[in-house]
Amino acid sequence: MRIRLPLTVRYVETDAMCIVHHSAYVAWLEAGRVEWLERLGQPYAQIEAQGVFFSVVELQIAYRSPARFGEIVEVETWLSELSSRKLRFNYRVWRKDALLSEGTTVHVSTNRQGQVIRIPEGLFSILAQALS
Amino acid sequence: MRIRLPLTVRYVETDAMCIVHHSAYVAWLEAGRVEWLERLGQPYAQIEAQGVFFSVVELQIAYRSPARFGEIVEVETWLSELSSRKLRFNYRVWRKDALLSEGTTVHVSTNRQGQVIRIPEGLFSILAQALS
Amino acid sequence: MRIRLPLTVRYVETDAMCIVHHSAYVAWLEAGRVEWLERLGQPYAQIEAQGVFFSVVELQIAYRSPARFGEIVEVETWLSELSSRKLRFNYRVWRKDALLSEGTTVHVSTNRQGQVIRIPEGLFSILAQALS
Amino acid sequence: MRIRLPLTVRYVETDAMCIVHHSAYVAWLEAGRVEWLERLGQPYAQIEAQGVFFSVVELQIAYRSPARFGEIVEVETWLSELSSRKLRFNYRVWRKDALLSEGTTVHVSTNRQGQVIRIPEGLFSILAQALS
Repeated sequence: MRIRLPLTVRYVETDAMCIVHHSAYVAWLEAGRVEWLERLGQPYAQIEAQGVFFSVVELQIAYRSPARFGEIVEVETWLSELSSRKLRFNYRVWRKDALLSEGTTVHVSTNRQGQVIRIPEGLFSILAQALS
Repeated sequence: MRIRLPLTVRYVETDAMCIVHHSAYVAWLEAGRVEWLERLGQPYAQIEAQGVFFSVVELQIAYRSPARFGEIVEVETWLSELSSRKLRFNYRVWRKDALLSEGTTVHVSTNRQGQVIRIPEGLFSILAQALS
Repeated sequence: MRIRLPLTVRYVETDAMCIVHHSAYVAWLEAGRVEWLERLGQPYAQIEAQGVFFSVVELQIAYRSPARFGEIVEVETWLSELSSRKLRFNYRVWRKDALLSEGTTVHVSTNRQGQVIRIPEGLFSILAQALS
Repeated sequence: MRIRLPLTVRYVETDAMCIVHHSAYVAWLEAGRVEWLERLGQPYAQIEAQGVFFSVVELQIAYRSPARFGEIVEVETWLSELSSRKLRFNYRVWRKDALLSEGTTVHVSTNRQGQVIRIPEGLFSILAQALS
């Protein structure tokens, strides 16, 4: 399953170079990931309510072309790897046909205390079916 | 007690007008308040560890002159009002002798669930002595 | 003219109290204001492209009830005051029927160098007609 | 040249997991890089004033252990690669002896319009001497 989440660039996300600051993309990827889980029928708030947290252990972003205030961008998101305790999401940020950025985040499944735990069986099999 | 906390303007805090975005001052005032409590010998992390939260109920900022990347600003902070369940902090943001901004935040004392509670007696009397 | 902009709470906007941090509302009000201008047919990016900036000189927010991750909030926005060089926007943040927050921002019309200028005549009369 | 920049964790940088949100590290690495240039005698504001921008093209962060509100962290920063148009900085985020995070950013030298340009000769040789 691949989704696209449209986002309106916020003024606060710009910087003194008159482009979107590179840190804003981190929030955008997160929004894409949250939306991906939402559309899967597994809202992240609900996952956390079960005591499961997808803690970020790796982040990687390549910036190809800047976004600017007044633009609408789309965050394409898919789950690219899955194991019993780990997930990898991949992302592409688009402005129409222009690829602005590519990224990936790796997450481990933890409890509230940060200890690594298995992804609960039900959730795991739903994720497995959505793997791209 | 009045304190001054020096802060280095971060690039991420600037916006497409090439000045510091008005939202960054909210984090600066908070840093000033946290430092004020630290110097009082009552670190906010320790206050929260006792189950007391100073929840923000009001925020007011006047912007007089912009800050820019590469500058060092100072956040002057003092406690201006105190009652059994409420505090008001006042702030001035300076760049050397230039007043950039003035602000105030009002807080209520709550427990973790957000219910209003009395400020614990010991903490209250320490705060009362530091009132400006 | 009054508008409502729906926003999905981002995880990055939450804090260690498990609620949305008070600074996130500043970005939300800005998003409301930008959307208000968009729906007026006067996108802010276009206003800036004409050399006119609505610089924030005052910000005031009252927090009534917290927002949390996983919620959708709506930012109600309207222009409440207008003069040749100044504007005031008012805001209310809702979660369904619950009023979470109320705020106001005051702006002066400036050029890129930050000097106060008259709001251009055409833009002024469009704004005047939309005044609530 | 390797430097260490101490930073006080801001409350706004925490999230609903009660730890520092992974996006905050992006601002921390930037602060480390800016301080590194400052201590080199080449403040980034001054580099930009010459029309040279170190645009971020790649970002990579590994998260080993979380930071929390109330802590002081240190950002260790060094320049690890340099060519006529490109730089790589490496970072480690520490809390005392605990390694919290490791990261890297790659930058291209551009003009204000975003076109890739050679790093000016004088600046290049100063950077080359500081390469670790």
